[in-house]
Amino acid sequence: MKTIAIGLLGCGTVGVGVAKLLLENRALIQSRLGADLHLKYVADIDTTTDRGLAFDDGVFISDAFTVVEDPDIDIVVEMIGGQGIAKDLILKAMENGKHVVTANKALMASQGNTLIEKAREVNVDLAYEASVGGCMPIIKALRESLVSNHIRSMTGILNGTCNYILSRITDEGSEFAQVLAEAQAEGYAEADPTLDVEGHDAAHKLAIVTALAFGMEINLADTYTEGISKITPIDIDFARQFGYRIKLLAIAKNDNGKIEARVHPTMIPESNQLSKINGILNAIMITGDAIGDVLLCGHGAGQLPTASAVISDIVDIARNIMAGIARRIPVLSYQPEHIQRIPVMPMDELFTHYYLRLAALDKPGVLSIVSGVLGQHGISIKSVQQISRRKAGTVPIVMLTHHARELDIKNAMAEIAALDVVEDDPMVIRIEDESNHV
Amino acid sequence: MKTIAIGLLGCGTVGVGVAKLLLENRALIQSRLGADLHLKYVADIDTTTDRGLAFDDGVFISDAFTVVEDPDIDIVVEMIGGQGIAKDLILKAMENGKHVVTANKALMASQGNTLIEKAREVNVDLAYEASVGGCMPIIKALRESLVSNHIRSMTGILNGTCNYILSRITDEGSEFAQVLAEAQAEGYAEADPTLDVEGHDAAHKLAIVTALAFGMEINLADTYTEGISKITPIDIDFARQFGYRIKLLAIAKNDNGKIEARVHPTMIPESNQLSKINGILNAIMITGDAIGDVLLCGHGAGQLPTASAVISDIVDIARNIMAGIARRIPVLSYQPEHIQRIPVMPMDELFTHYYLRLAALDKPGVLSIVSGVLGQHGISIKSVQQISRRKAGTVPIVMLTHHARELDIKNAMAEIAALDVVEDDPMVIRIEDESNHV
Repeated sequence: MKTIAIGLLGCGTVGVGVAKLLLENRALIQSRLGADLHLKYVADIDTTTDRGLAFDDGVFISDAFTVVEDPDIDIVVEMIGGQGIAKDLILKAMENGKHVVTANKALMASQGNTLIEKAREVNVDLAYEASVGGCMPIIKALRESLVSNHIRSMTGILNGTCNYILSRITDEGSEFAQVLAEAQAEGYAEADPTLDVEGHDAAHKLAIVTALAFGMEINLADTYTEGISKITPIDIDFARQFGYRIKLLAIAKNDNGKIEARVHPTMIPESNQLSKINGILNAIMITGDAIGDVLLCGHGAGQLPTASAVISDIVDIARNIMAGIARRIPVLSYQPEHIQRIPVMPMDELFTHYYLRLAALDKPGVLSIVSGVLGQHGISIKSVQQISRRKAGTVPIVMLTHHARELDIKNAMAEIAALDVVEDDPMVIRIEDESNHV
Repeated sequence: MKTIAIGLLGCGTVGVGVAKLLLENRALIQSRLGADLHLKYVADIDTTTDRGLAFDDGVFISDAFTVVEDPDIDIVVEMIGGQGIAKDLILKAMENGKHVVTANKALMASQGNTLIEKAREVNVDLAYEASVGGCMPIIKALRESLVSNHIRSMTGILNGTCNYILSRITDEGSEFAQVLAEAQAEGYAEADPTLDVEGHDAAHKLAIVTALAFGMEINLADTYTEGISKITPIDIDFARQFGYRIKLLAIAKNDNGKIEARVHPTMIPESNQLSKINGILNAIMITGDAIGDVLLCGHGAGQLPTASAVISDIVDIARNIMAGIARRIPVLSYQPEHIQRIPVMPMDELFTHYYLRLAALDKPGVLSIVSGVLGQHGISIKSVQQISRRKAGTVPIVMLTHHARELDIKNAMAEIAALDVVEDDPMVIRIEDESNHV
């Protein structure tokens, strides 16, 4: 039986998962692949902590460059993360003719175009299924299954930490800070939660799938990113009253070449399938001209779900190696000459529905002043809730708008925030419903 | 640009969809594939009815054998359906060295083993993504994405007609026959609905994915099949009272080599994601040792969703042709030497929870007699509902059982049906919940 030599870089959570599946499910993988995936190296700067895995002598080493320089290694699996040494190792591996599998969404989103270009130059495969959506085959679906579709939109819950926190606020009515602290204690949020709760992790993933779906270079810089740290139980309560749930959504749309790519807390109708995806689960709804909607849902992170996606990439490349071919499918789904540098629509130009919440002094006439400002900016109100729920002298006024332009909302909110009768910054949450389906 | 010649057999609903996508999204497919998919022939016995497609001269022909005999044709796409001429044409095409794509689940489920063997013999690709789950990439997920997983179970809503009818009975409380008639009028059910409502269509699909998941030959004969025609609004109401929904589920499990494969109406908890899949939508939950659960949901039928899956197969094969290879992935997911003939567990040996409903005479002591019979068969009751809702002299007695063996239920129900105090046949519905997760 043919042997394909794997070198694993990084033995943290997901790295351990990959090693575990390669060792423990080795016979199963052989029975499907028809070749043996031999884990020749696992490189990590920490080779002393026990990973609970029985490596043969000489497998667990500290020098990652040994792996990428070893002429026997066919596939390098980068599980280090970050944009420093990981990038150098990937480039060196590719220069040495090795195929590369990575789960590094930050690197792919920020510098993927460079890596993709290098892989093309040296004719190796670069695979990154595990960078988006953990075990869900989102990248395979976009590159292969939906190949005959013009993708119209993708709407995803792509960060499990945010979804867990929002689900708990929804269920328990607790404040963000408290739920975050509990999530950290339970291991559902990192010690430094910024990357997750401020939406950056979801934005990395969105930038990758947006490129894949629409035939454009990866463009993280123009991907609008807003996190969930300002969401309060009050907003979640009001959302419910209007028949909505609040989710951190990653949204990409292609409206006749006008590309939207944005990550932000979003109100979606309870009837939307994504509103029922709770806890740490991830999901993505992909809409295409032939398929209509298809939904994928599963664990978007975690040791073994992510490792499962990594191994699907390894096996795909191994099948190419066995057939004596490489680069059977273009890395970014489209043939290189069809990949365009398409600008993402500036957020100011977005048209959507909005939820607006103000903390206003409980005085007569406030609503009239506020709606006057909105009217001057061309914003039309669909419904208002003014509830006498006194809190420190103010009452919440909540409004849902008809379709409005983001820039108008921004300007109107700045004016309203400056009013004497309004305290604190107004809360603005975008709404996605049937009416803004592309 | 390389041209790959496609011959389409059958120009019914899905055939038209395939032709439509090949013609209308031709440039899009080219930009991803890097080759031109040229629709050289569309063969159908009816070449007079306008399909709304602008075929070039000589494309739309009536003789399918011209297609499979033409040396220029690279890929034959069988969209005729049924097990007669479709099989002959596929075999002939393969003998002539052509790769074959089919959406024919009845044929794959019944005679797939023969077709797969032939494809192996003559070294061509045989692809059938569209035979299960329409646009959802179920087969690709099983063959490629989940390759490192021991699949534990699959639970699917694989027939849109049944799901539509059950959803409407649930929403409206109407009787099966009435909803079926309306579904027929609306085009959601065939004039002869047997294949759908008696569960055969779902069983075809289940037999295919069971083989793929567990490394066994396709075994339709042993796939237990029961339809929805006996489900009444009363059962749906009781299900709701107990916190369940009724779905026609296709269930496959691998419990340490003991294989279950069964299609039947099933009560599932409201909290189960599948309970929220309504209308014509299909879905499948796949559980594996690495991924945990992954859910796919989308249109399981329909012209363009099914055509999208067909074209993903065509493009996969086209990529192989361009690379000068074939059979990159084993047709049935496992290498041929690892495919076993595994018997499916006889239904009598099933252990699960049951919902039982009797129409009993409204007399004292009936419950005692009935529960006595159950007790004699070793069946333990978890809860009982006896409601004084008189209907033609009888009242419904509803019981949920603890884990019980199918054979014991069958014997007990036969005995109970013969009691003087019980009218009509008892209704038995199996329950799937967390406790029978493999």
